[in-house]
Amino acid sequence: MKQAKISEAVVRRLPIYLQVLNELHSREIQTVSSQELGVKLDLNPAQIRKDLAYFGEFGRKGIGYDVIYLIEKIRQILKVNQTIKVALVGAGNLGHALCNYNKYSKDNMKITAVFDIHPDKIGTNINNLVVQPMNELTEVVEEQNIRIGIITVPAYEAQNVANQFIAAGVEGILNFAPAILRVPEEVRIHNADFTRELLSLAYYLNHEDDGENEEGDRDESAMD
Amino acid sequence: MKQAKISEAVVRRLPIYLQVLNELHSREIQTVSSQELGVKLDLNPAQIRKDLAYFGEFGRKGIGYDVIYLIEKIRQILKVNQTIKVALVGAGNLGHALCNYNKYSKDNMKITAVFDIHPDKIGTNINNLVVQPMNELTEVVEEQNIRIGIITVPAYEAQNVANQFIAAGVEGILNFAPAILRVPEEVRIHNADFTRELLSLAYYLNHEDDGENEEGDRDESAMD
Repeated sequence: MKQAKISEAVVRRLPIYLQVLNELHSREIQTVSSQELGVKLDLNPAQIRKDLAYFGEFGRKGIGYDVIYLIEKIRQILKVNQTIKVALVGAGNLGHALCNYNKYSKDNMKITAVFDIHPDKIGTNINNLVVQPMNELTEVVEEQNIRIGIITVPAYEAQNVANQFIAAGVEGILNFAPAILRVPEEVRIHNADFTRELLSLAYYLNHEDDGENEEGDRDESAMD
Repeated sequence: MKQAKISEAVVRRLPIYLQVLNELHSREIQTVSSQELGVKLDLNPAQIRKDLAYFGEFGRKGIGYDVIYLIEKIRQILKVNQTIKVALVGAGNLGHALCNYNKYSKDNMKITAVFDIHPDKIGTNINNLVVQPMNELTEVVEEQNIRIGIITVPAYEAQNVANQFIAAGVEGILNFAPAILRVPEEVRIHNADFTRELLSLAYYLNHEDDGENEEGDRDESAMD
């Protein structure tokens, strides 16, 4: 096992820790134990200690974790202590929702450009961003140093948009379209297709009579 | 390791397999190998064979998997061969986007009721569904036998909506609000907060110079 490499399951839990810690911080709570985090997140405290230990020894026995220090440390690990610019293609309802949410976000990932292919959308405003035509994408991505592209277009347009993002030089893509996209190895793609979430939720509904509740995506030998 | 229990990582991959298989089926392709699926999904073929073997021996050496049979089998495992009704609370942009997408969905999970607390939203139409007031939620959930609730309200309203869904008897919740919700053990909750996806994507951007590309949420000792 490559100890230095952080597993994907851990990386996916870090934003969740960050969310809880931000909430604790907003309530002026200064320290938190792995037990308390475990209750809040429905995760095993041992799992939490293990996850956080990847990045050095943060916690102190009997006292717990310093909330502000842990926030800073996780932000640093996720590299969101720097500003990361994001472009979005697809100015429909979902695109609007994401831009709107992003406006209130406390983190440094900001949607700074919005594009669409449809002439009736181009020139309209979403949260003070003017929707631009696709033929300006490459230039804007370069000029603004945009590193992430969000795709909120219908499935049949998604690969084409991904190709344009990749050609323009984005390093990561967050795809909301219900389509499997091909990207070169150096581009990271995450899928946020909500039907997948619904389908995997269905699995758990129907097995509920199995009794005990399996939690978390136990990477490696997770528990105990 | 409890062999009979399907790990969460596998359950989360099943909808992805289903999506690819549906696409192959729409192109009238009848069989597919784990190698071909692996290329399409950027997953190790051994991982795919292992995942699918959880449910019995589907594939035949040298021929691969029968696409239609595998679709049926996965639908059966996910229990989406039956109709599962879904209610949504929060008729904003995100709620609209989900309802709209759901209209075109081929699977049997259907949003059949939409609610909102804001008087100006109540009585409006989303894809032929009339937005209803929250005080009708319990009755509608019972009458229609709704089993899943989707939450697309702001973070500060989300727990309250979750409580109402739970009181009405839903078995699963898909939460899009950027909030950690508390639910009783018998209710399954999945979070689809897009900022988490963005944050974990940021991690991979900045480590890109590390070279090799780590893929998939390797549950157990997956790759070797």
